[in-house]
Amino acid sequence: MNYSSKIFEEAVLAFTRLPGIGERSATRLVLHLLKEDSSDIAKFGETFSKLSRDIKFCKNCHNLTDFETCSICVSPKRNKDMICVVEDVRDIMAIESTGQYNGLYHVLGGLISPMDGIGPTDLNIQTLIERASSNQTKEVILALSATMEGDTTIFYISKKIGAKDILITTIARGISFGGELEYVDEVTLGRSITKRIPYEQG
Amino acid sequence: MNYSSKIFEEAVLAFTRLPGIGERSATRLVLHLLKEDSSDIAKFGETFSKLSRDIKFCKNCHNLTDFETCSICVSPKRNKDMICVVEDVRDIMAIESTGQYNGLYHVLGGLISPMDGIGPTDLNIQTLIERASSNQTKEVILALSATMEGDTTIFYISKKIGAKDILITTIARGISFGGELEYVDEVTLGRSITKRIPYEQG
Repeated sequence: MNYSSKIFEEAVLAFTRLPGIGERSATRLVLHLLKEDSSDIAKFGETFSKLSRDIKFCKNCHNLTDFETCSICVSPKRNKDMICVVEDVRDIMAIESTGQYNGLYHVLGGLISPMDGIGPTDLNIQTLIERASSNQTKEVILALSATMEGDTTIFYISKKIGAKDILITTIARGISFGGELEYVDEVTLGRSITKRIPYEQG
Repeated sequence: MNYSSKIFEEAVLAFTRLPGIGERSATRLVLHLLKEDSSDIAKFGETFSKLSRDIKFCKNCHNLTDFETCSICVSPKRNKDMICVVEDVRDIMAIESTGQYNGLYHVLGGLISPMDGIGPTDLNIQTLIERASSNQTKEVILALSATMEGDTTIFYISKKIGAKDILITTIARGISFGGELEYVDEVTLGRSITKRIPYEQG
């Protein structure tokens, strides 16, 4: 496109580098910003300068934090016997919002994917094994996606930790709550039947 | 949502203020940024600090520019007899990309819309009238949207400039090139018939 201003063009290009934002959307976003006060635009820029400067990854579990150690790792209320292993920070947010888990986390930063050239050493797996080796850990929950990459990663981690005296679990798979049988995919439905569980009266 | 980092949350909120970006998309965008080098994130922030500091609106036509006057207004190649009046900067880009216009522009910064409380004084109409009063201007092209707001604005501007000895034109309306008749809306099709034009052999 034909930009009358170099600075404007740079701002548009900065947005287009983000996923799912094309040149048209980026132009719209920058023009929206330009309708705001100059101080608001400056604040928008400063937010990201601050992000690049001050954000840290927890030295324990690799969660995002403003300090050395994240709020979950330092909380005295959390159960330090359990480590829930997740792919990225969004998964922590999702699990936290359920309010059903009170242990610690460990962020892998991805999944093992030979097709994309991602091997175990590219992920935070070594630090997980070290954490699991501490006497405190009794259970490692592998809360990873039900994909081939997720299954590969689960297999690798369980092999690595398996020797130690630790319970390894994965999150339950089956039909969603509220899901209608006729719309469930065949693999999920098939496994839900073979892995059926005894009925417990609520 | 539950953010483990205040800085992270601020970055997410900065994105959600933009149109069409919700909290989930914003989280995804910030996590994408965090995968890049710290210097790249800093550069992203700096782009917008620069935008707030250095971007200017052309003192002549209100187009975006890095200088006092935009590249179109200062170009000796442009025909200074004509002013094409548009709603915003995106319209200039769209018209420029057609390569069919060689005159000057004037950005109104919106359209007259009593429903939204936007009157003539909220737009760059006074400066347009001043420019039109200069002896150089021979034609004012009103390239505004074919909406009620666009028509109102066209009516207002034509009344204001009408007294002077200037040709006022609007861009042609009718069916799109490549448009199939059966999918054209009734109003457009009806007007295309009443405002039919003599056939010119290409």
